[in-house]
Amino acid sequence: MVLLAGGVGGARMAEGLVRVLPEGALTVIANIGDDDTFYGLLVCPDIDTITYTLSDRIDRGQGWGVANDTVNGLNVLRDLGAPVWMKLGDADFGLHIWRNWRMSQGASLSEVTEECAARFGVKARILPATDDPLRTKLITEKGLLDFQNWFVGERCQPAVREIRYVGAEAAAASAAALTAIKDADLIVFAPSNPLLSLEPILSVRALRETVAASRAPRIGVSPLIGGKAVKGPLDKLLADLGQPAGAAGVAARYKGLIDGFLVDSGDVNDIVAIEADGVKVHATDILMRDPVGAERLARELLGFAAGLGVAE
Amino acid sequence: MVLLAGGVGGARMAEGLVRVLPEGALTVIANIGDDDTFYGLLVCPDIDTITYTLSDRIDRGQGWGVANDTVNGLNVLRDLGAPVWMKLGDADFGLHIWRNWRMSQGASLSEVTEECAARFGVKARILPATDDPLRTKLITEKGLLDFQNWFVGERCQPAVREIRYVGAEAAAASAAALTAIKDADLIVFAPSNPLLSLEPILSVRALRETVAASRAPRIGVSPLIGGKAVKGPLDKLLADLGQPAGAAGVAARYKGLIDGFLVDSGDVNDIVAIEADGVKVHATDILMRDPVGAERLARELLGFAAGLGVAE
Repeated sequence: MVLLAGGVGGARMAEGLVRVLPEGALTVIANIGDDDTFYGLLVCPDIDTITYTLSDRIDRGQGWGVANDTVNGLNVLRDLGAPVWMKLGDADFGLHIWRNWRMSQGASLSEVTEECAARFGVKARILPATDDPLRTKLITEKGLLDFQNWFVGERCQPAVREIRYVGAEAAAASAAALTAIKDADLIVFAPSNPLLSLEPILSVRALRETVAASRAPRIGVSPLIGGKAVKGPLDKLLADLGQPAGAAGVAARYKGLIDGFLVDSGDVNDIVAIEADGVKVHATDILMRDPVGAERLARELLGFAAGLGVAE
Repeated sequence: MVLLAGGVGGARMAEGLVRVLPEGALTVIANIGDDDTFYGLLVCPDIDTITYTLSDRIDRGQGWGVANDTVNGLNVLRDLGAPVWMKLGDADFGLHIWRNWRMSQGASLSEVTEECAARFGVKARILPATDDPLRTKLITEKGLLDFQNWFVGERCQPAVREIRYVGAEAAAASAAALTAIKDADLIVFAPSNPLLSLEPILSVRALRETVAASRAPRIGVSPLIGGKAVKGPLDKLLADLGQPAGAAGVAARYKGLIDGFLVDSGDVNDIVAIEADGVKVHATDILMRDPVGAERLARELLGFAAGLGVAE
């Protein structure tokens, strides 16, 4: 099965699924729209959060980065006058150095991502949506900002007027990701930010078309509970952009791409609206408080999928 | 004044001189023959040892690297299957990342070396011998080895048959280094390995010719006491190559380039031989056990230089 995923929420969903599925059954297709280059090193926050989570290296307190990491390298960069608003730990730098080294030798982002996951003992396949550059950029009240500049550097404060996935039209889908979607017996949209995590993936035309054409059950998980984002700026962003809010607003964005949607039991109005739109709903406690909670949600999701016609 | 220097011994001599001289009076011209690239990052061990020493960041126990550094990045590189025999700490990686980033933006090695020293509060000028690639390579019983591969990777074990300074003929002297030598009122050869530290510097033709033509006193300090290297493989190397041993052997290598030589008081036969060769000798305890010892030797060196005709 395939999981389309951003960072923290996507990683948590992946962790739940890995605990339930046979080893190797899960392929995670990760957003690369929030990748950026720091000091010449390509950093892939979503891929890394998923990889660190599934290899149990993750700093569970903050949800990203490596547990017990140090910042001696970043402190030196600060002493040398470099901007250091992106919090890159020393173990994290080890991965970024390695990735850039391998890619400078000709390896693709897909290859290094899979190689890293294998070396770290990850029991799922992790693939970038594309090996080509694709960058989420935000037109804000403070002008055009790169994603990480807005997200980390500006703490999501500047109001967003428009979001662009720069490079999407020219980007070729990762061949492995495309095959994984074609062969999938289930496609899951993680409870990630649609605007910043899943739509950058779906902005790669072949990926979107292949999801749209799939006859496997396709299930989304709401990233909003009671209209609020579990983590991140989604609710604020939808308001800034004047887009439909709540779980129903998110489900509507995926129209034609999903058959079912997991919604929090308390979001009664959203459930009615989503079902009225022809999408089946499974209502439950969708908050994944820890890996055990993620496993519970994964089991419910697979049960829901089976009811929609897939044999897991 | 100018100090030609390799790594640990050169850094210690520089530290002594900085404690005695007016701020900014010392220019250290550093060997770059043992530079190498790891994971795509240029590493300059001699420049870095000098910079770390003069900024008091040095790990004084081992004489190189940053005090209290961690190795989280290197551990990740090891987990990822990369060779990790070069011990690069996390703070160290911070500098290497910064240097490569600045050089990828077009800065020269001279520029980043001076910028780093300034940021770290170093009270001397540090310059690479050249901004061009110049690499010490060793023809050994195990074949041709890059310097760090032989020095760190192979722990200096393979017997050396020949040493080559690859790139030396094409390398242009650092303009700032050349000017510093021309303007120097004193030129000191640090107690560094002549074969691996100072001769790579002197293999840049313009630097050698400018030292040879200088009318300032030029003073060497023996890296050998009782025929043994204070640190490093010099005695073994001279034996492998069938070259003249001891302090006198080293002084003879600098023939035409030095006017005076500091020798350990116990090396009586060397003193006689060096003086017979027309080079003035100052015999004393030349071992620099700590910064205070280095300062004491620096004072003696400056006194000796004054006697040779320079006013410090």
